[in-house]
Amino acid sequence: MATLYHYWLSPGSRFIRLQLAERNIAFDLALENPWERRPAFLKLSPSGWPPVFAAGGGVPAMSDARAIAEYVEETQGDGGLLGENPLHRAEVRRLLGWFDTRFAGEVSDLLVYERIYRSEMKAGTPDPATIRVARQNMRFHLDHVSQLAEQRRWLAGDAMSLADLMAAAHLSVVDYLGEVPWDAFPEVRHWYSRLKSRPAFRPLLADRVSGFPPPDHYDDLDF
Amino acid sequence: MATLYHYWLSPGSRFIRLQLAERNIAFDLALENPWERRPAFLKLSPSGWPPVFAAGGGVPAMSDARAIAEYVEETQGDGGLLGENPLHRAEVRRLLGWFDTRFAGEVSDLLVYERIYRSEMKAGTPDPATIRVARQNMRFHLDHVSQLAEQRRWLAGDAMSLADLMAAAHLSVVDYLGEVPWDAFPEVRHWYSRLKSRPAFRPLLADRVSGFPPPDHYDDLDF
Repeated sequence: MATLYHYWLSPGSRFIRLQLAERNIAFDLALENPWERRPAFLKLSPSGWPPVFAAGGGVPAMSDARAIAEYVEETQGDGGLLGENPLHRAEVRRLLGWFDTRFAGEVSDLLVYERIYRSEMKAGTPDPATIRVARQNMRFHLDHVSQLAEQRRWLAGDAMSLADLMAAAHLSVVDYLGEVPWDAFPEVRHWYSRLKSRPAFRPLLADRVSGFPPPDHYDDLDF
Repeated sequence: MATLYHYWLSPGSRFIRLQLAERNIAFDLALENPWERRPAFLKLSPSGWPPVFAAGGGVPAMSDARAIAEYVEETQGDGGLLGENPLHRAEVRRLLGWFDTRFAGEVSDLLVYERIYRSEMKAGTPDPATIRVARQNMRFHLDHVSQLAEQRRWLAGDAMSLADLMAAAHLSVVDYLGEVPWDAFPEVRHWYSRLKSRPAFRPLLADRVSGFPPPDHYDDLDF
């Protein structure tokens, strides 16, 4: 059986959990606290960051959320979540990049670092200026998601794709921290509620990080 | 003919220039200064960041360096730079992610912002603390590149791939700023010099940003 090395509030890890669940691929979860930089984990993933996917059967472990997702799509045959032709895939991948680089660097990584990692690493108290900037940045990003959700059934087009899973994975982490201004973005809320209702999403809603409870609405399907 | 909207010191833009040149695809370059956030450019690329690739012939413009690279590989048939099987491609894509997210966020984006964008945007003087952190981070990254360059002919295996082009694009930007400690990393220098000698690399070595001359060794093939 495959193993996914993950951290609860790693958006890339949640993205792969969603993809594997949508594709009905069974896997074990192995928790990895990235700030510990365990030598055995660094051998699997030199960057030191989850997710790492060990497909089993002698296949080497692989890392980088987008690389893992492409591998899973390539090796699982039809029913693809990557899009049906090169142009559609380019749009799906544009959004993968948007969240994996821009949203991560400007919003989710900042908030998780300030509010979780600092405490776990005993690296001081959250920096209010960084949190303020991340919240401002989030509104720019949610504006774009809102436009897409108005124009299309799913973020990259008519069919649900990896773009929805990546975006929802990032938002679910930020939502766990109670930081998503849902009331200001009704279109985003509507799109997210459809994802939240899917069976693949259920395990994420049951996640609890010791010492950091989520807000009450976190696992509420009618939020 | 295709058009690539680029910025001289955007690593993602340089990566696509290298890919298109390696594949002998003719294209026009259109300069885009990302800090200007031109409305017409934001319509092509809502994130506001180059590279943006307009393939021509009615194909919508696309953005995100990795998305563009995958599109080019998918639509150009054989001779692929992405790897010959799913496992090899996973390793190529792991390195694309390493540079596009980690190296960018911890090294190249920081140095370009502090040393170029701040001046272009009139946003104060370079922050010495940030530059110091970026230089420290760079050594961690070059250690990994060095290990790969020792063990393999090219970064992801026996054949040159997009991983080499992405890594070299990032290093070329940092090298333009005179920030690569080549003497401490002879294996990296050796690998980079092989890339630097390729015809596809020549246009990058001729790049000059007004007001920011590169160091003398920048376009020297025997550096």
